Formats: sequence, C-alpha cells, structure tokens
Amino acid sequence: MKLGSLKSKTSIDGELVLVSRDLKKIAKAEDIAPNLLVALERWDQVLPALKKRDQELNQGIFSEALPYDEKKMAAALPRTWLFADGSAFIHHIKLVRLARKAALPETLLTVPLMYQAESARFLDPLEDIPQRDFAHGSDFEAEVGVITDFVPMGTSAQEALQKIRLIILINDVSLRGLIPEELAQGFGFFQSKPASSLSPIAVTPDELGKAWRDGRVHLPLNVKYKGEFFGRANAGEMHFHFGELIAHAAKTRSLVAGTLIGSGTVANSLVSEDPSIGSSCLAEKRTLEQLGQGKISTPFMKVGDTVEIWMNDLDGASIFGRIYQQVACH
Amino acid sequence: MKLGSLKSKTSIDGELVLVSRDLKKIAKAEDIAPNLLVALERWDQVLPALKKRDQELNQGIFSEALPYDEKKMAAALPRTWLFADGSAFIHHIKLVRLARKAALPETLLTVPLMYQAESARFLDPLEDIPQRDFAHGSDFEAEVGVITDFVPMGTSAQEALQKIRLIILINDVSLRGLIPEELAQGFGFFQSKPASSLSPIAVTPDELGKAWRDGRVHLPLNVKYKGEFFGRANAGEMHFHFGELIAHAAKTRSLVAGTLIGSGTVANSLVSEDPSIGSSCLAEKRTLEQLGQGKISTPFMKVGDTVEIWMNDLDGASIFGRIYQQVACH
Repeated sequence: MKLGSLKSKTSIDGELVLVSRDLKKIAKAEDIAPNLLVALERWDQVLPALKKRDQELNQGIFSEALPYDEKKMAAALPRTWLFADGSAFIHHIKLVRLARKAALPETLLTVPLMYQAESARFLDPLEDIPQRDFAHGSDFEAEVGVITDFVPMGTSAQEALQKIRLIILINDVSLRGLIPEELAQGFGFFQSKPASSLSPIAVTPDELGKAWRDGRVHLPLNVKYKGEFFGRANAGEMHFHFGELIAHAAKTRSLVAGTLIGSGTVANSLVSEDPSIGSSCLAEKRTLEQLGQGKISTPFMKVGDTVEIWMNDLDGASIFGRIYQQVACH
Repeated sequence: MKLGSLKSKTSIDGELVLVSRDLKKIAKAEDIAPNLLVALERWDQVLPALKKRDQELNQGIFSEALPYDEKKMAAALPRTWLFADGSAFIHHIKLVRLARKAALPETLLTVPLMYQAESARFLDPLEDIPQRDFAHGSDFEAEVGVITDFVPMGTSAQEALQKIRLIILINDVSLRGLIPEELAQGFGFFQSKPASSLSPIAVTPDELGKAWRDGRVHLPLNVKYKGEFFGRANAGEMHFHFGELIAHAAKTRSLVAGTLIGSGTVANSLVSEDPSIGSSCLAEKRTLEQLGQGKISTPFMKVGDTVEIWMNDLDGASIFGRIYQQVACH
C-alpha cells in the first residue's frame, strides 16, 4: 500500500489518501482514519478497510478515484511526535568528520549515532527550503526512513523489525555552517538541523518486494541537484539495519506509534573508485573534492538551487513520488 | 490562571481543566477546548472564555466545580510537538562537566546549550520513574519551563518574551551512566534523557506577580529526595532568560504553539558557601562531595526512592502543585 496526505486548510495533519501503484490515482480515506498519524495509532483496526480500498483503487474499480497531483500533497506524514535520526552509513560519518576535522567515535561500528530532530511540521515535498543566511551553509541529505508502530521500551533489534509500518524518503536539511560550533558545545544538533521534508508517499514494506530485506532497502536513492545527476547511492549499504536503529531509540523509552526513524545520509564506500555513484549531500562531495583535487569547488546551496530526491523500484517506477525543493530567501 | 489536564481513558492529551488559586477546586473546560494543546493552538480565541470561568471558579460561584485531586492529574501538558531543553544555569554546567571531566564550551556565557528532548508523552506528576538498570545512573533534574505560542523563525529574545503563554515545572529524568559514552559520540543526548515528568499545573505568567520578571522566575525551587530536604535553589539565577532560550530555539525554525522550553537544572553558585541552598539533581551533590570530602557518598536513585519538586509563591502557597515520583523496577 502507498499512503499519503493531502494538504488541508483545516488540519496540519492533512487528509489521509491511498495512492495507486502507478502514482496516477488517489482514493480519499478520511472515512477510515482522518489522517495518517491517527491511522498509525489504530493500525490493526483500520488495516482491513485500507487494504480493501487499495485493492479497488489498483483494480480501477474505486468509483471516487481522483487524479494524483503532487502539488496537492503534503509530506506523507505532515508531523509526528518523535523523529529520531540515525547515521547508519559509516562512509558518510567518515567523510563529514574528515571535513570538520573531528575524531571518529570509538563505538563507530557498534553503537548507532542518533539524535532527536524537528518533527512538529515537516516541509511538504515541493516546499521551498528557507534560507536565512548563506553563511549557514545549507545542505540537503537524502535519507530513507521508517515509521513505526508503538514500540515498548527494551524491544530487541529483531522484534523491532516487526514494528515497521511504513517506509518513506527524507530530505534532512542541514546547516553545515552551524554544525562545528554547535557540536563543540557538546549537546548535539539543534539549530543546525531545521525542518526536514518527507516524500509525498509512504509505503508498507511489502510494496518493496525483494528490495526490502534484512531491515534495509536495497535500492539506489536518486539525487539530482540543480537539475543534474548528483547521486544514486544504494540504501542497502546501511551498517546498522532499521531494527537496530529502532532498538537503540527504544532502549530507555517506549516509542509512540508514528515514530519516524531516519537512516542518516545514504552513502556508499565505493564512491571514491566509482564516481557514477555520487553522493547524497553536498558535504560529502566537498570533502571528496578536497581530498582529490586539494580544494573545494562546490559551494553550499544558494537561493534558487533545486534538489530532487526519489527512488525507483526494480522495474524503474517511482516508489515514493519525489521530493523536489528549491532554496528560497526567508 | 492555573491550567491542568485530567487523565483521560480516551485521549493521551487529557481533558482541559482550570485549577483554583488555592489548589482546592477544578473546573472542567473541555467545552472551551478539548485539551491544553488545542487551547494553546487557539489561545486568543479561547482566552476570554477561560478567564471568565477562572474568575467564577476563584470567586466560588462556578456551580460545577469539583475537588482538586492530584491523583487524577496528568502532566499539565501530557504531550507536545517540541521540547527544547536548555541549560541556562552556568553553575550546573560547571559542576556536571567537572564530574565527567569534560571541557567547558568556549561559548559558555554567550550561546545557550540546548537539545531536543522526548515530548511524545510526559510522565504524570505522580507516575513512577521506570528503572531498567541501576548502572544507568538514574537522576532527577528540577527545572522550570515555559510553554510558547507560535514563534516565527528569527524572533528576537525580547519579542520572544511576549510569546510565553504558560510556566510549568519539569523533572528532567537523566541517566548519568549513559551520558559520557553518548556525548562522546558527538550527537548529544538521546538514550540518556528518557521521558520527563511535568507538574500538574501550568500557570500564566501574571499568576507569579512580581516573581516573574526579566524572563525569569525569581523564586526558590523546592526539592525533597527520599522525604528529606535536598534543595531550594532560586530559579531567578538563570544566565540566559527564557526569551533568549526561545530565540535560540527559533533561530532556524518556527516553533509551533505548545512548544516547551526548559531552563535546565536550577542551580545557584552560592551553594558551596551556603549548603542550605542544596542542589536540584544528584550529580551536583555528588560532585560537591567529591570536591569537599574527596569521595562520593550519594549513590544514584534506587528502586523505591522518591523525589518531590514544587515551588511556593511569596505567600508560601504551592503554585504548580507537586511532582512526586518514585523509582520503580521496569
């Protein structure tokens, strides 16, 4: 099933819709649950009705189907109570720490990095990225995320895999110019990680077929920057799988239904040898330039720059719709 | 006005109530707004009706008044979209960093420390503090917090003072045993800061009279541990005032209505000379023991230990009701 949220004038949470597999039609599902956050809280109750409507929509027999219009879509989950963003691609951690001359944590390969991020309102998939100051060093970070059911405190990594309800794409907007000073204070990110955007569609794991295995999405995540190829790193190269990230988050607290867990910037270690893989954020490209050519030639995002993030299935069809954002002066 | 939330079987957000100034009576206010979070989102609309009922309640002419029963109270704000916890008492920062032999940030006096904390469900004021493992080093931290209106990105510290809707008390439960390793990873707190509890009552700033000035609450915050005096540090000794903390949080994002901003552990620099001031967390007391007597004699919280946090007004009456929690085996 593909689920999304229509923008709504009356509710930040939007209106729940099902999206057809070919991304051409939607079926409203407000009568089943008013919005996706409520649907996640009542998942077992609403699932049969959602499945039935999804089947009708995909068979072309749902009489009230409407055309899919990406301009009308909010973030699939417009807001939620907890966004715990991990950093499970070791190659990304190595490159960004190299860039800011920071040491690697001793527990790099044994304990996931994670911080709590803004979830009070995600940017819509086509919404502008606000830029207050170019010195903030605006960057994108293409990530995969999972949305969970209620997860009791102390859940194991294997049990946690069963708590994954939906998979989604994230653009974790990052302000690189603010990160060194903020991390030097010792409390982690806050100002340097403003609102992220989410893809217009979140999908149930079965929607990914064989590409969903071992708690990872084994598909390339496509990134275009300023209309040109930027990256296609495979999201399957996560060092920690999503069950491990969820278990890490749930070690000392229960996670509410609707919790979003991010993978961290998708990055492949082969990129230095195979430039056709590219990167999923500017910071990595800049570090590779510094290492390879001795100087950085790619600046951070400027007003007017666009970033596009999407993922295709094995047949080349878009799974989540696209995040497509422009940087705008705030 | 004093506002609170009755526990509810049907909603995590509880049911909005007004509490009389003497903490003896409540008036249900669900007909005005279903819960406090919604009231905050519609503040200007609901304020006249809340004020009218509050007046009737305090004049003893509200016919449907019910007795105040602390056992029926949830956290005044049972959950919210953002809890940004600051650390505005410099003496606390100095002591806890001394304890874990961590350097002080260079920007100690110019840039607030802040991290995003769990807000998906606050513990009720009388709810047990769950302890999974004594090695986690469970500690309390008595804090003051403010709850804001919508705050646009880039709001100044002075403007931010006008966005404060309510004041509340916080017990920021901290797992000291997990902090050194977690902070060494570089991403700040996550596992080491599980769910906090909030006082049963949140009050409008006018309720504090002259004690609310310069964006600070100039009153001692009382802490009892295991039934005995533990601290009465004055909350007015904040280095950064709440307007500065809000402005820091809003530098790169807008804050939604209902955002909770924490002061950090209330601590007074005079405590070394005047032990009758005491501390607002165990970590500080332990550091003072190490410094004064060369060894630590106070362990972290054990199952069965209680902590009580409250604040009296200038006439000695409790303003926020009390947080009173016991540590329980999870």
